[in-house]
Amino acid sequence: MSVVPLLSDKEASAEALAVFNDIRARRGTDYVNNFWRALGHDTDQLRNVWEQAQQVMSAGALDPLVKELIYIAVSTSHGCNYCVHSHTAAAKAKGLTPQMHSELLAVIALASRTNALATALGIPVDDRFNVACTPS
Amino acid sequence: MSVVPLLSDKEASAEALAVFNDIRARRGTDYVNNFWRALGHDTDQLRNVWEQAQQVMSAGALDPLVKELIYIAVSTSHGCNYCVHSHTAAAKAKGLTPQMHSELLAVIALASRTNALATALGIPVDDRFNVACTPS
Amino acid sequence: MSVVPLLSDKEASAEALAVFNDIRARRGTDYVNNFWRALGHDTDQLRNVWEQAQQVMSAGALDPLVKELIYIAVSTSHGCNYCVHSHTAAAKAKGLTPQMHSELLAVIALASRTNALATALGIPVDDRFNVACTPS
Amino acid sequence: MSVVPLLSDKEASAEALAVFNDIRARRGTDYVNNFWRALGHDTDQLRNVWEQAQQVMSAGALDPLVKELIYIAVSTSHGCNYCVHSHTAAAKAKGLTPQMHSELLAVIALASRTNALATALGIPVDDRFNVACTPS
Amino acid sequence: MSVVPLLSDKEASAEALAVFNDIRARRGTDYVNNFWRALGHDTDQLRNVWEQAQQVMSAGALDPLVKELIYIAVSTSHGCNYCVHSHTAAAKAKGLTPQMHSELLAVIALASRTNALATALGIPVDDRFNVACTPS
Amino acid sequence: MSVVPLLSDKEASAEALAVFNDIRARRGTDYVNNFWRALGHDTDQLRNVWEQAQQVMSAGALDPLVKELIYIAVSTSHGCNYCVHSHTAAAKAKGLTPQMHSELLAVIALASRTNALATALGIPVDDRFNVACTPS
Repeated sequence: MSVVPLLSDKEASAEALAVFNDIRARRGTDYVNNFWRALGHDTDQLRNVWEQAQQVMSAGALDPLVKELIYIAVSTSHGCNYCVHSHTAAAKAKGLTPQMHSELLAVIALASRTNALATALGIPVDDRFNVACTPS
Repeated sequence: MSVVPLLSDKEASAEALAVFNDIRARRGTDYVNNFWRALGHDTDQLRNVWEQAQQVMSAGALDPLVKELIYIAVSTSHGCNYCVHSHTAAAKAKGLTPQMHSELLAVIALASRTNALATALGIPVDDRFNVACTPS
Repeated sequence: MSVVPLLSDKEASAEALAVFNDIRARRGTDYVNNFWRALGHDTDQLRNVWEQAQQVMSAGALDPLVKELIYIAVSTSHGCNYCVHSHTAAAKAKGLTPQMHSELLAVIALASRTNALATALGIPVDDRFNVACTPS
Repeated sequence: MSVVPLLSDKEASAEALAVFNDIRARRGTDYVNNFWRALGHDTDQLRNVWEQAQQVMSAGALDPLVKELIYIAVSTSHGCNYCVHSHTAAAKAKGLTPQMHSELLAVIALASRTNALATALGIPVDDRFNVACTPS
Repeated sequence: MSVVPLLSDKEASAEALAVFNDIRARRGTDYVNNFWRALGHDTDQLRNVWEQAQQVMSAGALDPLVKELIYIAVSTSHGCNYCVHSHTAAAKAKGLTPQMHSELLAVIALASRTNALATALGIPVDDRFNVACTPS
Repeated sequence: MSVVPLLSDKEASAEALAVFNDIRARRGTDYVNNFWRALGHDTDQLRNVWEQAQQVMSAGALDPLVKELIYIAVSTSHGCNYCVHSHTAAAKAKGLTPQMHSELLAVIALASRTNALATALGIPVDDRFNVACTPS
């Protein structure tokens, strides 16, 4: 069910384990999920993804739950089963209610439908939706 | 640049024109964008998509701007150029700031990266991310 | 294996159960498949999808089996494992023969190959494939 | 608008020109569309795709127009603008009516919507949709 | 877990078995993997895919391991779990090292991220990236 | 043709211009392509993508041209027209020959075809392609 072994704490390198422990500390849980254990074979990728995730998913002009909703939308559209499951769990932990989940799915479903229609019809972008481009 | 003609008001059937005029009234603009003009050849689809869009995209547990962000995320992942343009314009009309746009893109980019990693590694879903399923 | 519980008849709301029972009645079977049991948490979405499916998939200018083939083609291209399985079963119930299935797969495989070639080559659409667009 | 030059008859190799001429003869037109002119840089790929297309798209258990509909469905889902345009034109040449086109789009749109819902919900395949697998 | 039975040697037609045996002979193993056993229901498709795979994946201007990397990249982007697993195994058999695997994943991840950014921004292709097209 | 203005050197912030100039210096050209000019609105994303691209795409266990081929494969599968064009140009600059390009396209086309077949058949992953997973 994986193309590489999922690294246990014992199997992980010191550098990978340091990231696992940072995940534990920042999330306030002892559990490190499979994604990180598979990524641990490449400590550069592991550290870089974890750091980027910390920075991108934290509160900014958009709140963390909204960011999780966007993440689920992307993961659904890419058909990433793992990511749909892990980020729906993350969204629940950040306050996703059943009503919000229903509305999220309704938007994803509507967009998937209209994306297909726009593509099947080959509709040209309206001039007013294009911003003027000086260089080219 | 389209597989069907984009219907002008004159070319549209009475039923299609009624939807065009409802679009104008609810949006407070005289402009009807290409998507609806292409869809107008099938008045059932036109009316149904317009009504569903009205219902799904309005305020609920999620606010309309958040819904536009989710729409853009789906449209980007599906590679629908038309929809990316039209819904980025719609989001701007609903208050999207450059900072929010940057954060939206950062989440889409991060999710696209981790979706690819999870898929390339064939990572199995953690048991705790699965909800118990009684029937099957 | 699901991000929400699959609703048994007992767990379903009265509205969701009414849809389940309509599915049973129209299909002439006691079995309600997982898709509807997961969708049952949002009775609006459940009812709307079921009604739209009834309308869209019934006989018209295209016959119901042809519509199932189109459905399988879309589901394959989106990588929706659930939908490939459920609609291949539906197509078999509507008369799909092994020979038809082989031809369906051959077309899907050919289109997937040529789609990739056209995209990798960045081929521009021939003028004659574009319908004249008056408004824009 | 292309990553390789589109080969005119003069620029094409003798082998590529032979395929162009076979396309003309079998289609009863002097026009060779851009796809083949771009593919002509690799005569093996050109000949192989043309031959496979002839074989796969001809009448069998499924008729040629149904095969075009499946082709359009795949091309839409992959977001291949070129292929959507060229195969919608091909389908029109084989008898696609506006009513059939509307129904095709309605099925593509419905499947795109339910694919997204099934994926976003992580719905497990029902046992009855799986065929027994003896080897593994 | 499959929409058709996986054919054992006994269940396979003489023609399918001949392909299975060719797979065994060329790969120097007694094992025939599930892909071919499922494809065996359509002996034309089976033979054609096997022959094309032999020809396309063999050494040429690109070496066989590089071709497997490209195969994995495509399979990841299409979300084909089966193909990711089978071709990562094939790449390992052809000499894929953990370091090469990490770099492969890093490129796939980067491209997935920048693909999303380019699409979300609707960036027009620079003139200099387009090759001049005489016919159209 | 873009949802944000492409920033000229004059319009760019000092930080964005510094990245533009680094692109010029490292590539030995005065030309900065549209991708970076669109990304320049978010200097963090601009700098991070540029730095990651420098690191990921440089020589390692895989050579830079092989990495460009993988990049093109991913971009094709995601339908990113911009990325297909820019990275085919980059590959040519790194030594891509027409023969290599043909072989790249042949692998992408074959993988796209077999990905579709494996998905349409719902083929289960062979046990031997799964690496043992201790944690879960």
